[in-house]
Amino acid sequence: MTSFSCLTFLSDFGLEDGFVAACHGVAARIAPAARVIDITHLVPRGDVRRGAAVLAQTVPAMPPAVHVAVVDPGVGTARRAVAVQTGSGILIGPDNGLLSWAITALGGASRAIALSNASLWNHPVSPTFHGRDIFMPVAAHLLTGTALADAGIEIEVAGLVMLAPPTNRMLDGEAEGEVLSVDRFGNVQLSIPAPAAAGLGIVFGSSVLIRCNRRELTASYLETFGSAAPGELVAFTDSAGLISLAVSNGNAAETLSLPPGARVRIAAGLPL
Amino acid sequence: MTSFSCLTFLSDFGLEDGFVAACHGVAARIAPAARVIDITHLVPRGDVRRGAAVLAQTVPAMPPAVHVAVVDPGVGTARRAVAVQTGSGILIGPDNGLLSWAITALGGASRAIALSNASLWNHPVSPTFHGRDIFMPVAAHLLTGTALADAGIEIEVAGLVMLAPPTNRMLDGEAEGEVLSVDRFGNVQLSIPAPAAAGLGIVFGSSVLIRCNRRELTASYLETFGSAAPGELVAFTDSAGLISLAVSNGNAAETLSLPPGARVRIAAGLPL
Amino acid sequence: MTSFSCLTFLSDFGLEDGFVAACHGVAARIAPAARVIDITHLVPRGDVRRGAAVLAQTVPAMPPAVHVAVVDPGVGTARRAVAVQTGSGILIGPDNGLLSWAITALGGASRAIALSNASLWNHPVSPTFHGRDIFMPVAAHLLTGTALADAGIEIEVAGLVMLAPPTNRMLDGEAEGEVLSVDRFGNVQLSIPAPAAAGLGIVFGSSVLIRCNRRELTASYLETFGSAAPGELVAFTDSAGLISLAVSNGNAAETLSLPPGARVRIAAGLPL
Repeated sequence: MTSFSCLTFLSDFGLEDGFVAACHGVAARIAPAARVIDITHLVPRGDVRRGAAVLAQTVPAMPPAVHVAVVDPGVGTARRAVAVQTGSGILIGPDNGLLSWAITALGGASRAIALSNASLWNHPVSPTFHGRDIFMPVAAHLLTGTALADAGIEIEVAGLVMLAPPTNRMLDGEAEGEVLSVDRFGNVQLSIPAPAAAGLGIVFGSSVLIRCNRRELTASYLETFGSAAPGELVAFTDSAGLISLAVSNGNAAETLSLPPGARVRIAAGLPL
Repeated sequence: MTSFSCLTFLSDFGLEDGFVAACHGVAARIAPAARVIDITHLVPRGDVRRGAAVLAQTVPAMPPAVHVAVVDPGVGTARRAVAVQTGSGILIGPDNGLLSWAITALGGASRAIALSNASLWNHPVSPTFHGRDIFMPVAAHLLTGTALADAGIEIEVAGLVMLAPPTNRMLDGEAEGEVLSVDRFGNVQLSIPAPAAAGLGIVFGSSVLIRCNRRELTASYLETFGSAAPGELVAFTDSAGLISLAVSNGNAAETLSLPPGARVRIAAGLPL
Repeated sequence: MTSFSCLTFLSDFGLEDGFVAACHGVAARIAPAARVIDITHLVPRGDVRRGAAVLAQTVPAMPPAVHVAVVDPGVGTARRAVAVQTGSGILIGPDNGLLSWAITALGGASRAIALSNASLWNHPVSPTFHGRDIFMPVAAHLLTGTALADAGIEIEVAGLVMLAPPTNRMLDGEAEGEVLSVDRFGNVQLSIPAPAAAGLGIVFGSSVLIRCNRRELTASYLETFGSAAPGELVAFTDSAGLISLAVSNGNAAETLSLPPGARVRIAAGLPL
């Protein structure tokens, strides 16, 4: 049994209220020595897909940990609360797909437990605040040595709710993907891995043809957008290894009207 | 003498500047082993009442701690700086009512000290930044074993500035309360405890009649709003045990024009 | 060789994404016992000058630490990555001026290293995320005992990129400075130290003549703005020891149209 000293926490609770702090407090009461790393609490309310994307792209940087994620529009309904053992860490949250991409990023699920052992919970359990009363106390107990199996009933890994993975497909000389995420800078992350682009002959120092919203655009494919002229559209490999689009000193998502989910195709252009 | 290893921190300093971090730094210099939990720093500027509400609803989830709260529009004036011993933890901040509801939530004040022992402070003391120079260093010294009595002069507990508790009263078949708080989701928290509603015959699965702003509305009283249809107005018991109103996937405070302080009456409606 | 147990972190990464957390995760993997204090991550994107101002004004409150700062519009270009030893702590970040005012605030640079020892980095190194892959892992390694000299190649301290210090000059009976920073409250911080004002005969309880934007205004010079009437323009000595302007319960930067960089002159007025 691996033991963990670190707990991570992602939610859509925001930072204006005391919700995040209440969860920290509950964890500190149970596991005073735990180190807690907040991933983000600014996931748009109820946006499971956005939460799943941020979680999956952040957990690989973490030490072995118990990861608590709560974007839970169905809190208090029949959706299950689960803990999932992966190759490198345990994920805890609602079984609504939020954890699914992180499960993949951490090497896949080897075991899943439906959280049903109420002796690990914070009582009275609020029907609207399982983050404070179920997910976080269970995570903290796991850090203090409680075995995963003691958190509830083993369930089929195959039965976990999984979001469809972001699609990408290779067409004739083109790769098609979707906008996976837009960051604070307006950079547009596509669901096209850098190796797929390389397979099309897209290499640093060449241009990329971009088709989206019935338009054709040309971007420079650069190792980093730091070397681009202000206002220039560039493509680059982002910190998650995915092809991304940026407008230097600008906002690519707004300029190109590319919200999450929008479809984009890329192909090799001419050398710069 | 109880000893604490945890310090919590609430303010209206915001997150754009280095003010919160400077306080953390001062605490770390004095009490390197202290665990600091931020409650929130996004209390609207100078909104003592909002700060008091968030503080009171969050501290019960915390381990025994020294709680520092700074929403202090009168910083540098004659208002006192105080430390208040409660049944479970010490509260430190300006004596302007900010601490008052938390004092109640933590079991009442057993002792109060006006902070006057300047040897515990950070020097030079800025007249506009007592968070960094007085409140936080005093709190950190308490964590390292300094006795509360050494922080200053004992004062009458009865003389502490207390905000009027949020009003609620039972009328003929109705409970009247006020909007205590509006959270990030636009959920409207009323100053009506769930047992008071139960006493009126408001039970899960029945409807609630709501009177506010010269209107009458009907809401479903549900165990959780997760089971409501999008756009539906629901009442529920929130994570603080208070009756709250939500619009499923919407913003109840905006939809109903219910800012903090607005008066609301509720009564039992028909079974759903 | 001093050893540090504390790491501070400032960036323009924002709080919506997982970027800050990924850096925390990398630090926790290398230096599990490190205490990390976030200064702010809401520096406007690429605003090196604002980052430099917040960093310089916050680090003096910190315990001896390794300070990581990343506002890095040139990430991935030829700009150097550096670690700078000061009188009280080490600063790590891009060599673009971001660190310069903090170097001064911490007593000046005694040694500088260009980060070139890739064995301390996180691999693969993303060309767009040196915060996660270079700056933070190097900082964490310094906390675990790696010597500064082992982080790379010694470079000339005199060759570090320094921002021009904020200007202020004494004229005939006037002090001229610029707006150094505007905080969350709209308070306008001038690059005029309080002693310079005192040298002009500006003392608490007198008025100050303010010239800016071709206007002349009069403010009260008060020990704290807490004692001012709502809407009143006041001058005070802020928590960094600089002359600042505030509108009580208002926003001085907006009211006076004073963004960072704007020029302001002050002179002694009449006693109040």
